[in-house]
Amino acid sequence: MRKPIIGFIGLGIMGKPMASNLLKSGYSLIIFDIDPLRLKELFDKGAAQADCPREIAEKSQVVITMLPDSPEVENVWGGERGLIEGINPDQILIDMSTISPSVTQNLSKSMKKKGVHCLDAPVSGGEIGAINATLSIMVGGETEIFEKARPIFECLGKTITYCGPSGSGQIVKACNQVQVAFNLMGMAESFILGAKAGVDPAIIFQVLSGGYAQTRVMDVRGPKVLVGDYQPGFKSRFHLKDLNIILRTAQELECPLPVTGLIHELFTAMVVQGRGELDHSGIISVIEDLAQIKVRSNAK
Amino acid sequence: MRKPIIGFIGLGIMGKPMASNLLKSGYSLIIFDIDPLRLKELFDKGAAQADCPREIAEKSQVVITMLPDSPEVENVWGGERGLIEGINPDQILIDMSTISPSVTQNLSKSMKKKGVHCLDAPVSGGEIGAINATLSIMVGGETEIFEKARPIFECLGKTITYCGPSGSGQIVKACNQVQVAFNLMGMAESFILGAKAGVDPAIIFQVLSGGYAQTRVMDVRGPKVLVGDYQPGFKSRFHLKDLNIILRTAQELECPLPVTGLIHELFTAMVVQGRGELDHSGIISVIEDLAQIKVRSNAK
Repeated sequence: MRKPIIGFIGLGIMGKPMASNLLKSGYSLIIFDIDPLRLKELFDKGAAQADCPREIAEKSQVVITMLPDSPEVENVWGGERGLIEGINPDQILIDMSTISPSVTQNLSKSMKKKGVHCLDAPVSGGEIGAINATLSIMVGGETEIFEKARPIFECLGKTITYCGPSGSGQIVKACNQVQVAFNLMGMAESFILGAKAGVDPAIIFQVLSGGYAQTRVMDVRGPKVLVGDYQPGFKSRFHLKDLNIILRTAQELECPLPVTGLIHELFTAMVVQGRGELDHSGIISVIEDLAQIKVRSNAK
Repeated sequence: MRKPIIGFIGLGIMGKPMASNLLKSGYSLIIFDIDPLRLKELFDKGAAQADCPREIAEKSQVVITMLPDSPEVENVWGGERGLIEGINPDQILIDMSTISPSVTQNLSKSMKKKGVHCLDAPVSGGEIGAINATLSIMVGGETEIFEKARPIFECLGKTITYCGPSGSGQIVKACNQVQVAFNLMGMAESFILGAKAGVDPAIIFQVLSGGYAQTRVMDVRGPKVLVGDYQPGFKSRFHLKDLNIILRTAQELECPLPVTGLIHELFTAMVVQGRGELDHSGIISVIEDLAQIKVRSNAK
């Protein structure tokens, strides 16, 4: 199809650079955010303004939402002057937020009745991935709709994977966040054990990252953790939000995840302790407190 | 120094190919194993026979032990006709088994009084690493002794890392096994969550291994797990043994490792369930039972 007019809702840390990349690729954009201050930069680049989600729906062929969590998505869709009030048949709604797979599925089902097509398309790769258009995008929904939307995804990310029917993108994102949490937690406990025994954690980093224990998490974050640098990156309170979604989903699916459950409790502790703004690799600080030791490299 | 005569005790799955590589590199070897059937192949390649560890100590300048666990090492060193009865000052004893760091330290201390130098040098890389001389070797002990022994290590492995004083090699190996256990367990719970939600685990593998969630464990073992292939590799009962060592060490160090503790319990279950001979990636089978599902890819 010709380049559709895209409505974009949610211009935060992720949404703003993504919208910017769509403008760069020649799409016409109409944008909305509850915080109007976030919009100015994009107006300067040519985006048009909408006063509410309804207006976004009325004036675009494709709507992208990039919001913090399920309640915000539900509110934008179904709240006062919400998307639903303005949608037209054959419109495509792409939710790129990381939210509950079952919320996604329910929204998609109710939209289908109105002839509107939904895709769930959560991303990984963080702010840098959003800026550089190198996000990994995990898409759930009907294959034909996915193929229609593919040119849009290709302006936003490098790896675009069709995962299955509605909700599958959210499920794969959830699996991704499970594995990343394990990798972070494993780095934390292995560094702590070594440090407690008096071994320089820089040596542990060197050996583990060079062998079967290697993880991309340690490759990227290990050197920072060794000097106590937890600048995000990906804030721990967002990983806790993802773990909350994961465990609620596991409950719905009757799926016991014993270790994920414990890791969730430790991320809860981290946020309760006021460390929610730190990078999620800062989970090591929770174990440092438990073990009464700081992991720091002696290497210069 | 000139190529020393090496005594080698423990010619099992790991020890035999390692001894073979030393013979290939031109070292004279005298060998001992409680199971004489393991020795024949090495005699054919030129190794000499000893009747007991004592004789090994009497007839060599460097002794290498490659044994299952701490009790076997203690027995070979201090048992009847043990190494201690035959040692000479300035001899070097290299224990390449994966054992308790504190047992290593105690043995090393008691040997030092007799003028004998000890190195702990556990390895990772498995049977294939032993055969191809690509092991990762983590060495603890005095640096001068490490430098003397380096040419020997270079015949056995690719990455040789000096980790610190006696016991440090075992500590780094312990940290390695912690991280690997997390990576395996993360693969298990993320695949299970996805499968339970009806997503093809091959897609989960593809997305996770291509992004921030990537681990070498998943790169190597993911494709096998997707078809239910748990041929070892590294047997789960050995990983349980390592986790036993890790938790005892953590106790000695007063080091809480909450998630490692839980993963240890799940590996205990795996072995109790009669799955000790499976590859450690088979830990997913424990969660499969809990969740009443089999993780299998639909992809051809």
